[in-house]
Amino acid sequence: MAQIYERVALIGLGLIAGSMAHAMKRHGLAAHVAGYARSEETRKAAAEIGFVDSVHATAIEAVKDADLIVLAVPVGAMGAVAEEIGPHLKPGATVTDVGSVKQAVIDAVGPHLPEGVHFVPSHPMAGTEHSGPYSGFATLFENRWWLLTPIEGTDEGAIARLRALYEGFGANVDTMEAGHHDLVLAVVSHTPHLIAYTMVGVADHLRRVSQSEVIKYSATGFRDFTRIAASDPTMWRDVFLTNKDATLDILGRFTEELFVLQRAIRMGDGDHLHEYFTRTRAIRRGIIEAGQDTDAPDFGRTRKG
Amino acid sequence: MAQIYERVALIGLGLIAGSMAHAMKRHGLAAHVAGYARSEETRKAAAEIGFVDSVHATAIEAVKDADLIVLAVPVGAMGAVAEEIGPHLKPGATVTDVGSVKQAVIDAVGPHLPEGVHFVPSHPMAGTEHSGPYSGFATLFENRWWLLTPIEGTDEGAIARLRALYEGFGANVDTMEAGHHDLVLAVVSHTPHLIAYTMVGVADHLRRVSQSEVIKYSATGFRDFTRIAASDPTMWRDVFLTNKDATLDILGRFTEELFVLQRAIRMGDGDHLHEYFTRTRAIRRGIIEAGQDTDAPDFGRTRKG
Repeated sequence: MAQIYERVALIGLGLIAGSMAHAMKRHGLAAHVAGYARSEETRKAAAEIGFVDSVHATAIEAVKDADLIVLAVPVGAMGAVAEEIGPHLKPGATVTDVGSVKQAVIDAVGPHLPEGVHFVPSHPMAGTEHSGPYSGFATLFENRWWLLTPIEGTDEGAIARLRALYEGFGANVDTMEAGHHDLVLAVVSHTPHLIAYTMVGVADHLRRVSQSEVIKYSATGFRDFTRIAASDPTMWRDVFLTNKDATLDILGRFTEELFVLQRAIRMGDGDHLHEYFTRTRAIRRGIIEAGQDTDAPDFGRTRKG
Repeated sequence: MAQIYERVALIGLGLIAGSMAHAMKRHGLAAHVAGYARSEETRKAAAEIGFVDSVHATAIEAVKDADLIVLAVPVGAMGAVAEEIGPHLKPGATVTDVGSVKQAVIDAVGPHLPEGVHFVPSHPMAGTEHSGPYSGFATLFENRWWLLTPIEGTDEGAIARLRALYEGFGANVDTMEAGHHDLVLAVVSHTPHLIAYTMVGVADHLRRVSQSEVIKYSATGFRDFTRIAASDPTMWRDVFLTNKDATLDILGRFTEELFVLQRAIRMGDGDHLHEYFTRTRAIRRGIIEAGQDTDAPDFGRTRKG
């Protein structure tokens, strides 16, 4: 594939940035990838793994002469990073971020970027429950959605170039208004994560069922929840704090629905339960047809035994 | 492996019974497997797939001369089946069931079984989101737990023989008191399923986010929920109706915890969220160490792309 950026700076070197670096190398999409992370341990790891061409001790050094700057830090840290690097950005450079919340990032980052620098917020809808510099891999974004939430009036050329990079990773790129993005994500990702965290927390607290039994007998349902609940705590804290309104809205609807089902259980209303459970099957079929998942039983999880 | 039962009768021919039949054939654990299902379509399918040696038009015919009778119907249907076959069971035969709730099954089935027939309730902690005669496979139980909840005073030889069958399937067999089983399952399986159903229902109802967007952008969290929520509606209706007390107890704890987290989001209490999310990681590590899941990112789900 053709090179798209001369010099890319990654601010933050965790799962997403690391995977971007691996993918840029594999597909020859950037001539030089510079990296910065706050923790020295992470910087050392990135240098050792070798997915960046240069590692820098400060974000300011890392962004020097960069054509594309990727903010890949927790959403709550984006504003401070933007403030720090703002004065050191090359005119004409593009800044993007990979945060899971978009309006809060636009509000926090936008004001710190100088005139002549293009800001194109984005969100790769891909990830695993692992984090840190060792968790990335080149194929993370293949066949996954990468949403752009550009601000009106942004340079079309800068948007198209960033889109080309993400398509070079194998991602499907789509554009969306930032506020709408945050609501969609509250439904398909943020609230489900909070619920999974909660369920795992309940199991953890429960005294009558020993923790070893919970672990020993974790069946499919709960096992999936624990995987979700093992995700990076800092990233998720920031998601909930910065996508507060949409998350609280969806949570309110969730508890409403849950109480209706709870009442049906208490009253022994089997018809209501059956009808509800039948309806939820349809959305699953839709997801399989849309190619977001495999129909193989148990996710095609590799069997031991 | 050596044959363990001469003649086994499967009442119900869905995912679990089908998988048992496949496993019995593969490992030579039974000389003859007889099958019965209420629906003619299912009986025809079982005969066509060939995982049973004989298919019968009534449960009474199917259990004739059987040494082991497996009740593999939804929990709510167990009592009626037991009443029907009770008078036709061979003296000395063993009856087991594979229901996800145990105390309710004991209460419903026990009274209908004649003296001299051994009742050993059991629960295979294995399954997929698929159901019906075509969904079974021989390795479903390998390395999964199969819990026995025998009633005090049950013949030890009958228990040991059933255990040997399940071990022949590659399952890990454990014994537990029925009421405790139902509480453990409420935590690790029943409540998580109800929550997943609810979250998928919320997404389905939501008007501002179109259903196609929910499907299109279903990220990991929600996608896992939809898989859980695609499970058999009849089976799950019966689980909630028959394990009502434990499910309502755990649901109560869940909403309590959820409200605390919801309040932390509303108040912007990031420390509380971070501390909670950090704690839930430990239980995940425990599950991986206990060998109930793989540490491969994203469950080792086969990547397309």
